[in-house]
Amino acid sequence: MPLVIMAEPADGIASFVDLDHDRAARRGYPEAIFCAGKTPEQLALIATQVRDRPEVTLFTRAGKEQAAAVLSELPEAFHDHDAALLAWPPTPPDTDGGLVVVLAAGTSDLPVAREAQLTARYLGRPTELVVDVGVAGLHRVLRRLDLIRSARVVVVAAGMDGALPSVVAGLISAPVIAVPTSVGYGAAFEGLAALLAMLNACAPGVAVVNIDNGYGAGHLAAQIAAP
Amino acid sequence: MPLVIMAEPADGIASFVDLDHDRAARRGYPEAIFCAGKTPEQLALIATQVRDRPEVTLFTRAGKEQAAAVLSELPEAFHDHDAALLAWPPTPPDTDGGLVVVLAAGTSDLPVAREAQLTARYLGRPTELVVDVGVAGLHRVLRRLDLIRSARVVVVAAGMDGALPSVVAGLISAPVIAVPTSVGYGAAFEGLAALLAMLNACAPGVAVVNIDNGYGAGHLAAQIAAP
Amino acid sequence: MPLVIMAEPADGIASFVDLDHDRAARRGYPEAIFCAGKTPEQLALIATQVRDRPEVTLFTRAGKEQAAAVLSELPEAFHDHDAALLAWPPTPPDTDGGLVVVLAAGTSDLPVAREAQLTARYLGRPTELVVDVGVAGLHRVLRRLDLIRSARVVVVAAGMDGALPSVVAGLISAPVIAVPTSVGYGAAFEGLAALLAMLNACAPGVAVVNIDNGYGAGHLAAQIAAP
Amino acid sequence: MPLVIMAEPADGIASFVDLDHDRAARRGYPEAIFCAGKTPEQLALIATQVRDRPEVTLFTRAGKEQAAAVLSELPEAFHDHDAALLAWPPTPPDTDGGLVVVLAAGTSDLPVAREAQLTARYLGRPTELVVDVGVAGLHRVLRRLDLIRSARVVVVAAGMDGALPSVVAGLISAPVIAVPTSVGYGAAFEGLAALLAMLNACAPGVAVVNIDNGYGAGHLAAQIAAP
Amino acid sequence: MPLVIMAEPADGIASFVDLDHDRAARRGYPEAIFCAGKTPEQLALIATQVRDRPEVTLFTRAGKEQAAAVLSELPEAFHDHDAALLAWPPTPPDTDGGLVVVLAAGTSDLPVAREAQLTARYLGRPTELVVDVGVAGLHRVLRRLDLIRSARVVVVAAGMDGALPSVVAGLISAPVIAVPTSVGYGAAFEGLAALLAMLNACAPGVAVVNIDNGYGAGHLAAQIAAP
Amino acid sequence: MPLVIMAEPADGIASFVDLDHDRAARRGYPEAIFCAGKTPEQLALIATQVRDRPEVTLFTRAGKEQAAAVLSELPEAFHDHDAALLAWPPTPPDTDGGLVVVLAAGTSDLPVAREAQLTARYLGRPTELVVDVGVAGLHRVLRRLDLIRSARVVVVAAGMDGALPSVVAGLISAPVIAVPTSVGYGAAFEGLAALLAMLNACAPGVAVVNIDNGYGAGHLAAQIAAP
Amino acid sequence: MPLVIMAEPADGIASFVDLDHDRAARRGYPEAIFCAGKTPEQLALIATQVRDRPEVTLFTRAGKEQAAAVLSELPEAFHDHDAALLAWPPTPPDTDGGLVVVLAAGTSDLPVAREAQLTARYLGRPTELVVDVGVAGLHRVLRRLDLIRSARVVVVAAGMDGALPSVVAGLISAPVIAVPTSVGYGAAFEGLAALLAMLNACAPGVAVVNIDNGYGAGHLAAQIAAP
Amino acid sequence: MPLVIMAEPADGIASFVDLDHDRAARRGYPEAIFCAGKTPEQLALIATQVRDRPEVTLFTRAGKEQAAAVLSELPEAFHDHDAALLAWPPTPPDTDGGLVVVLAAGTSDLPVAREAQLTARYLGRPTELVVDVGVAGLHRVLRRLDLIRSARVVVVAAGMDGALPSVVAGLISAPVIAVPTSVGYGAAFEGLAALLAMLNACAPGVAVVNIDNGYGAGHLAAQIAAP
Repeated sequence: MPLVIMAEPADGIASFVDLDHDRAARRGYPEAIFCAGKTPEQLALIATQVRDRPEVTLFTRAGKEQAAAVLSELPEAFHDHDAALLAWPPTPPDTDGGLVVVLAAGTSDLPVAREAQLTARYLGRPTELVVDVGVAGLHRVLRRLDLIRSARVVVVAAGMDGALPSVVAGLISAPVIAVPTSVGYGAAFEGLAALLAMLNACAPGVAVVNIDNGYGAGHLAAQIAAP
Repeated sequence: MPLVIMAEPADGIASFVDLDHDRAARRGYPEAIFCAGKTPEQLALIATQVRDRPEVTLFTRAGKEQAAAVLSELPEAFHDHDAALLAWPPTPPDTDGGLVVVLAAGTSDLPVAREAQLTARYLGRPTELVVDVGVAGLHRVLRRLDLIRSARVVVVAAGMDGALPSVVAGLISAPVIAVPTSVGYGAAFEGLAALLAMLNACAPGVAVVNIDNGYGAGHLAAQIAAP
Repeated sequence: MPLVIMAEPADGIASFVDLDHDRAARRGYPEAIFCAGKTPEQLALIATQVRDRPEVTLFTRAGKEQAAAVLSELPEAFHDHDAALLAWPPTPPDTDGGLVVVLAAGTSDLPVAREAQLTARYLGRPTELVVDVGVAGLHRVLRRLDLIRSARVVVVAAGMDGALPSVVAGLISAPVIAVPTSVGYGAAFEGLAALLAMLNACAPGVAVVNIDNGYGAGHLAAQIAAP
Repeated sequence: MPLVIMAEPADGIASFVDLDHDRAARRGYPEAIFCAGKTPEQLALIATQVRDRPEVTLFTRAGKEQAAAVLSELPEAFHDHDAALLAWPPTPPDTDGGLVVVLAAGTSDLPVAREAQLTARYLGRPTELVVDVGVAGLHRVLRRLDLIRSARVVVVAAGMDGALPSVVAGLISAPVIAVPTSVGYGAAFEGLAALLAMLNACAPGVAVVNIDNGYGAGHLAAQIAAP
Repeated sequence: MPLVIMAEPADGIASFVDLDHDRAARRGYPEAIFCAGKTPEQLALIATQVRDRPEVTLFTRAGKEQAAAVLSELPEAFHDHDAALLAWPPTPPDTDGGLVVVLAAGTSDLPVAREAQLTARYLGRPTELVVDVGVAGLHRVLRRLDLIRSARVVVVAAGMDGALPSVVAGLISAPVIAVPTSVGYGAAFEGLAALLAMLNACAPGVAVVNIDNGYGAGHLAAQIAAP
Repeated sequence: MPLVIMAEPADGIASFVDLDHDRAARRGYPEAIFCAGKTPEQLALIATQVRDRPEVTLFTRAGKEQAAAVLSELPEAFHDHDAALLAWPPTPPDTDGGLVVVLAAGTSDLPVAREAQLTARYLGRPTELVVDVGVAGLHRVLRRLDLIRSARVVVVAAGMDGALPSVVAGLISAPVIAVPTSVGYGAAFEGLAALLAMLNACAPGVAVVNIDNGYGAGHLAAQIAAP
Repeated sequence: MPLVIMAEPADGIASFVDLDHDRAARRGYPEAIFCAGKTPEQLALIATQVRDRPEVTLFTRAGKEQAAAVLSELPEAFHDHDAALLAWPPTPPDTDGGLVVVLAAGTSDLPVAREAQLTARYLGRPTELVVDVGVAGLHRVLRRLDLIRSARVVVVAAGMDGALPSVVAGLISAPVIAVPTSVGYGAAFEGLAALLAMLNACAPGVAVVNIDNGYGAGHLAAQIAAP
Repeated sequence: MPLVIMAEPADGIASFVDLDHDRAARRGYPEAIFCAGKTPEQLALIATQVRDRPEVTLFTRAGKEQAAAVLSELPEAFHDHDAALLAWPPTPPDTDGGLVVVLAAGTSDLPVAREAQLTARYLGRPTELVVDVGVAGLHRVLRRLDLIRSARVVVVAAGMDGALPSVVAGLISAPVIAVPTSVGYGAAFEGLAALLAMLNACAPGVAVVNIDNGYGAGHLAAQIAAP
């Protein structure tokens, strides 16, 4: 019985998590552990619990200390420092379904784009990542149009003016997942400017996810490109 | 040459629109005329121009006066008053691809949900619409779970707390397109509350489009459920 | 005469607080010291002043240094590190009134939920805490429905989409106190998304308190469940 | 089978609502029809459906035209023009539970306060309404302190600075439900100023509902004051 | 002495405006009368005052009634209904300085673009206007690149995602003036989305003016393209 | 006993206001009736109640219909249409205290400036009003510097960039009351831009009141300039 | 000639400030150095420049390092650590003009209140400071009413709900300067809630300054209470 | 082929940037590397790549560690610590085109103003920088009017109320580029207040760029003042 019921005050909180062990069966996709709000102790405990499970577990938004906690229990886990993501078991499943192409408008958008790519890959899709194709240099994205048009779904990570998804969606027939990133000067307001621009994309076919939410974008892409 | 070049001031603006006649060919989807910012004269002119085209043209956000202008030139056009949408030719194409299920959390969300359903249908997908399945009465949505789980993609239109997409996404493996509606009391802020809630959906697999943007949701759904 | 009147500039501020000693008598509830804006010196002084008082004093939002200051004067005080709360005297009063059930949507909401539970408990109510019952896994909250329906009032702490209070309020007849937490990705805007969602809960019977305000939620719950 | 399933486009939407007939049984409180987003035709249909039901049905936010539609089917219904509320059957149930006292800070807050009072009354509670007790004239609220202290729960409707709930909560031991109203000059921002002030009430024990949401406040009050 | 000094209350306000008659001399540019906040009487009076002045006077944001008031005194004035602009004397000055090219992303942006074009023209610059060159159809703007590259300064009016200025600025060496328009669905927030996107343009060389401020854009363009 | 206590639902609300008859005595300033939220019937009733009172009563924000209601009972009342203000008795009291100078940055700011001037005048201060002295034409305000420097307090009404109070405060030693007005283009956000600018005035000595709150500015000015 | 003109790039910026030496003469009030944006080197230089000037110089918002830089040149300067303020020469001028009473709603508002008090005192006014008189305990402020009513102007520093200025302004005839502080839980939004509440104070006579701007409040108070 | 394509997860991201080597040729202006989002390793690599290029490369927003990385590869590079900017090659090109005058309202605005000046200078324009000419001391800016009027374009960096661009634009005929800075107390909201004020400048001819975006302002100025 994994739920916590505490009737009386105690010195500490025994925060056992109700791990959703049957989620992969019910929803068809593996579980992700959002590390940002968890202590190293909690994460180490979770790592122990998933060690012997065959299906993939992702650890997202893992800072340095949190990644170390997971790796202390699962030293063989895959760890991408830039994407702040770990995966267990380390080998991704065989690919199945349509191609997921991930675009990063600028180098600063790379961590989010990488998190999206890795998530889609660990959920079973073939993926490609293309970097530095912002709208300020249109020739760059046009040069890659063949690859982009071969995708079942395209993920676009962009900060600042968030203009890339509109441009891409106007060039292809596949759906575009837009991930605003918190990259930019003052009035970018931590990604709000890009978020609003993407919600108002003048080309139809743009799906928006939360700011910096590479995991969500990759998961959505894997669902759309499912076989 | 449809672009307007005006070198000198004139009494009025001859606002001929550069109709994107080859868009269906390039992107694979028909054109939509956003009526909200156009005069009846402009719309009548556009209606004349599309009369003999075989592919579908949608007229979205058509108020009473604007719909009349389109119907004056295309009296046989399909017109859905609640969705403020017209379609020409009136008969939708044969269905192809996966099923699109559209959910309206409440009766007030119906116009947006209907716009989404009709858009997906005129873009060639089979569709179903289910009404009044808000989270305040969980039994209602659970009662329809079989239908919902048979969809390739689910569109959820909801205002107020925007909670329905999270609940639905947690129950199925297909992607969910969330459309916030501007339904609600003061702090709904014309759909902002629902929009933010949907962007923060605690279940992965939720794609968000603009507030009240039923057309965009339906278009995206048609792309995701494409054969 | 505890009020400070300073007519001339001085080297430091002798910031004696006008402790509301008769508040318990007047309002029926004990006093809470909000530690976040106070120095260790101020807190140590206050701790000294309450040492011999029989009624409960709560110290809320006590960071590491601030908790140490209180404990230096009241080493026997109850201290919950996660909830950042101390209580003096350490033993809570006998329980009276209706049951207060506290729900935490996710593990990250636990500190706030715990602060609510402890506050209600130290104000004299019986309490229960249930963790990880977010709407992305409806079966979890439905599994606990008997306990939830036995409450006189339910406190729900949730971040991200803030959807749980709507769902719970639709299932029970008791009032729900919704506490938005600052948990979430970018467009959660430090709890704003959850706050707005809760204010727009589509089920009636939801009372909202400030973001992360577990103390306020627990206090309100104790008042509602008063005998 | 009340849910609407529409597989093919049609000229109009047959928007039958899935009336939650067993809600009173399940939640213990009657149903309310939010009129603001509904057409007169929809409301007349709903009025017909509830005519023979013994439990109370409330019609909230009913504008002139909408109220007429309800009255055309239920000419004996209770109708309060200022509160924009109708009730059927017209006679409220016998009172039960604790006293609900409703305060309106100013005359302009009266419609919202009245909606709260009537809702609580039709849900079975004894109620009292006190008007024009804003904090700019403290003597007014202090003069009514005996009545206010006799309440099981107090509802406070206030716009502008939203300061009254803090003052009242500091004077009594019962919980306070604060309803921000959209009354005020420019920087009131349609009730946002009052909403934020109430969420930050410096006295604990304040539950906030949505702007102008008198119905929600009255419903919550009825639940808190339930026998 | 044109300033108004009123020492005692009077039945009406004799609102004589301190017309800045020497502004053209001091700043080098003619005067503009912002009509939106003025009564027909005030405008007729101003029209009388400028009748015999040789330099250009612009009347901006003139609604139907306000334009009629100006035309009642200056029946020969130039009047562009869409741009809501009048000019006196009606003939624009000879052109001087560099070319100002104005782009309208969509048909709905035309009124603002037209106001910018006319303002620049009446301030003495040669101008061109190109319509319907939004980023959703990149080929349209690329087709006009020769004209755009021949400009000394380019004005871009765009609503929704406000992406066009970034794309254009990345293609040319002249400065770009971006005018956000209030065109778009819900989360366009009356032009806020486009405004933020433009302030965050990922290509340098973008100057932003206020939402729908075609006059300001045209004035700035005339200054930049001055001989 | 003017407070309203309604125990049972009734057909209409007898909304008698608790007129604060002794306010002039207690605070030293007369009463103002904020008309915006009141019906003609309520205003006529109030007008009757104040007819025989010797001290001044102001009716602020009185629209056409509301002013007519007051004048139907007090046909001799002073009425300024532009300021939307009525006063009874019509003759202002003799002047006392320091001079109040009111500045309106532009003609569009005049109604608010006029409301401020009339309020200060009816509260007993000598007043002067200067119009069209915006910072875009510095020479205009500098030309009136002698008058401005002779004031005990200066009220500045300005919309758009709200820059005038900073400039004026930097030139004089008296305090400046800044009233933002809702004048301006899109990103003026109904006065928000001016409000923020004024709160951030780079010269000390600027007191800010609510947007368009001429009454509040005039009242505050009368208090500061009190003898 | 203190202005900096730099025609060519250099390794560092010699940021000599154009000290407004004649400001005291022109405006009648001494100068203040806002330290927050300045380096220790800049502050030491300024301290040297003012050493021999007879009129008062205030250093506001001086952090630990910045205060040390000033004290290194002016070791005898007055320094209040809590208010982050230094004054030179250290002895305040003789008092003149009306009494300034400063109220701090809570202990956390004390630094801002203290900054206001010291500023008014160093500008020559007699001052009093009263702490912990928030509206949650009305008896505390009512107990001090005699002192408050003896003031020429009252400064009120409050965070959270910002309700105290409304209450105080309703009790006295002198003007009230409201200083919102950034004290509070999440939805206080760093003082925004208090700021909006104060701008919407339901009692006239409230002047608002910027969040945490104790210096501005004190300066304004000194001007209002000038002899 | 500089684009990155990663098909399989790897331990780290080889983030090679697609350096826009032909940008200077195509747009006519050199490249800038935005350092804020890049690691020291990435910057060192970029520094190596540009070492032998004749055209100017700017490194903007370079913190201490990032500047060191660039200098490790380009020890002779020009480095301005305050502006956080490096340039390679260190010697700016010969000046050409019109004069760019940069104004800093206060000392705290100097880093942004300096970034603008250096950018314009390295893009080939003659520049002048004037400091501490805020509107609170009008005489300062008026004293420099001759220099300001000799400019082809004026850049104004200002925080707080952002009033200086309005004042300057009203005095000259050249265009003004306004750069809001994040300088100010609470309600400056990190530059938002200044940004809004500048967008609402009451004098035409004001071009606004992003908050703290000195680079963008300098680049735009160089384009406007191009020969």
